[in-house]
Amino acid sequence: MPYITRRKVRFQHCDPAAIVFYPRYFEMINSVIEDYFAEVVEVDFRAMHVERHVGVPTVSIETHFHAPSHLGDELEFSLEPTAVGTTSLTLSIRACCGDEARLSCQSTLVFVDMDSGRPIPWPDAMRQRLVSELA
Amino acid sequence: MPYITRRKVRFQHCDPAAIVFYPRYFEMINSVIEDYFAEVVEVDFRAMHVERHVGVPTVSIETHFHAPSHLGDELEFSLEPTAVGTTSLTLSIRACCGDEARLSCQSTLVFVDMDSGRPIPWPDAMRQRLVSELA
Amino acid sequence: MPYITRRKVRFQHCDPAAIVFYPRYFEMINSVIEDYFAEVVEVDFRAMHVERHVGVPTVSIETHFHAPSHLGDELEFSLEPTAVGTTSLTLSIRACCGDEARLSCQSTLVFVDMDSGRPIPWPDAMRQRLVSELA
Amino acid sequence: MPYITRRKVRFQHCDPAAIVFYPRYFEMINSVIEDYFAEVVEVDFRAMHVERHVGVPTVSIETHFHAPSHLGDELEFSLEPTAVGTTSLTLSIRACCGDEARLSCQSTLVFVDMDSGRPIPWPDAMRQRLVSELA
Repeated sequence: MPYITRRKVRFQHCDPAAIVFYPRYFEMINSVIEDYFAEVVEVDFRAMHVERHVGVPTVSIETHFHAPSHLGDELEFSLEPTAVGTTSLTLSIRACCGDEARLSCQSTLVFVDMDSGRPIPWPDAMRQRLVSELA
Repeated sequence: MPYITRRKVRFQHCDPAAIVFYPRYFEMINSVIEDYFAEVVEVDFRAMHVERHVGVPTVSIETHFHAPSHLGDELEFSLEPTAVGTTSLTLSIRACCGDEARLSCQSTLVFVDMDSGRPIPWPDAMRQRLVSELA
Repeated sequence: MPYITRRKVRFQHCDPAAIVFYPRYFEMINSVIEDYFAEVVEVDFRAMHVERHVGVPTVSIETHFHAPSHLGDELEFSLEPTAVGTTSLTLSIRACCGDEARLSCQSTLVFVDMDSGRPIPWPDAMRQRLVSELA
Repeated sequence: MPYITRRKVRFQHCDPAAIVFYPRYFEMINSVIEDYFAEVVEVDFRAMHVERHVGVPTVSIETHFHAPSHLGDELEFSLEPTAVGTTSLTLSIRACCGDEARLSCQSTLVFVDMDSGRPIPWPDAMRQRLVSELA
């Protein structure tokens, strides 16, 4: 079952054509991943970055934009993990508005010790959570 | 009674000190004004910009930042109109986290015909709504 | 010969780890494409969006982040077209800092009539320019 | 003599009316302050934030937007300090496009130890630089 959350297309997301400027989609995607970690993995970004000095930087992201999103649209984002490596995580993310697909995205991120900048293995509790959520 | 809405301090809002980078506060402030127009004035930004070719550009904004906001903070924004002119509107906006004031802001915007770029009088329905909400 | 331009990693691009937050890279990438159209294709975004009501929305973008970029880094971006279709354009974009690769990206965009939202063929002059620049 | 630097109005700065969305002006303003510190005060933000764990957060900012800026405009920003306190600095910043004033802004920032979050006195070298630049 994918994780589902919603985002409204706001004025700040829109370009001179009154459609979402695609770098703003990546802010939305990051906020969806942020909520997924807080709500499903149960380790939020504040705990990671401020308390534990770890993070989940993105190493690759491939995105297809199927149709433009307009000011005021309500987007439904769905996210599910598709692969969990020793230090990495691949996520499949989609956004639609009603029946219309707007974007689909595959993102790979890595669990990193922010002090050294090096990948480190997922802690057992996080890993088990992620594996149990695999598509 | 001021209009109240909440915003979470997300990763995308934070600077290298893990506190809100102040230009991101202005995105939040704009989104609060956007919700106020949609929910209280009952004319949303899509109706204004896309359908009617009108807008509410900001002509001046004065902001005091009382204390930093950190990643993960839940901010409560309150907004109320303090003056309604023929074509203008002055808003008082505050944000706090629990008991702590984070920012206070006075913003003046103008109702504008986006085709000509010129201020035009508030339509009666919008004006009455705004006047009835005066602090 | 790829088109070359530089961008400095500014405070506004950086996250709580003092490295570039990846959505900000897409703003940089878009600004590099913007300069490429203005300087090489010789049709700038103002002429496209405001005067001709055409645009070049991105339909897909695949990006690999090879190493983090830090506050103050000077990035060298290189861009070259790798395919020119009837209505589409594929660009290969790279960024490095000194000898170190930071990102590589393949982006496909489409020439669109912004009034109808539909792809239209590249005008001959733009097409010839793009074809002459193919990698 | 005020410090002068230029910024181009890019696609990423513009809203559905193809004019600068005002939160983007604050990113420009911050980048102008960043360049001022690097070039005139001769202490850049990387040295401050990463090496010394100090920063210059904004405590208040008052801005007047005199006329809209359009996609493609070349803005000339001028900045000069108007007051140097023990721990604070007030800057007057203006932007124009050709002969037309676009914004004027008064910003007060404070020199802060980022570990404690507390204001600390300007180091002598920075203070002398700032005082010598007073309007």
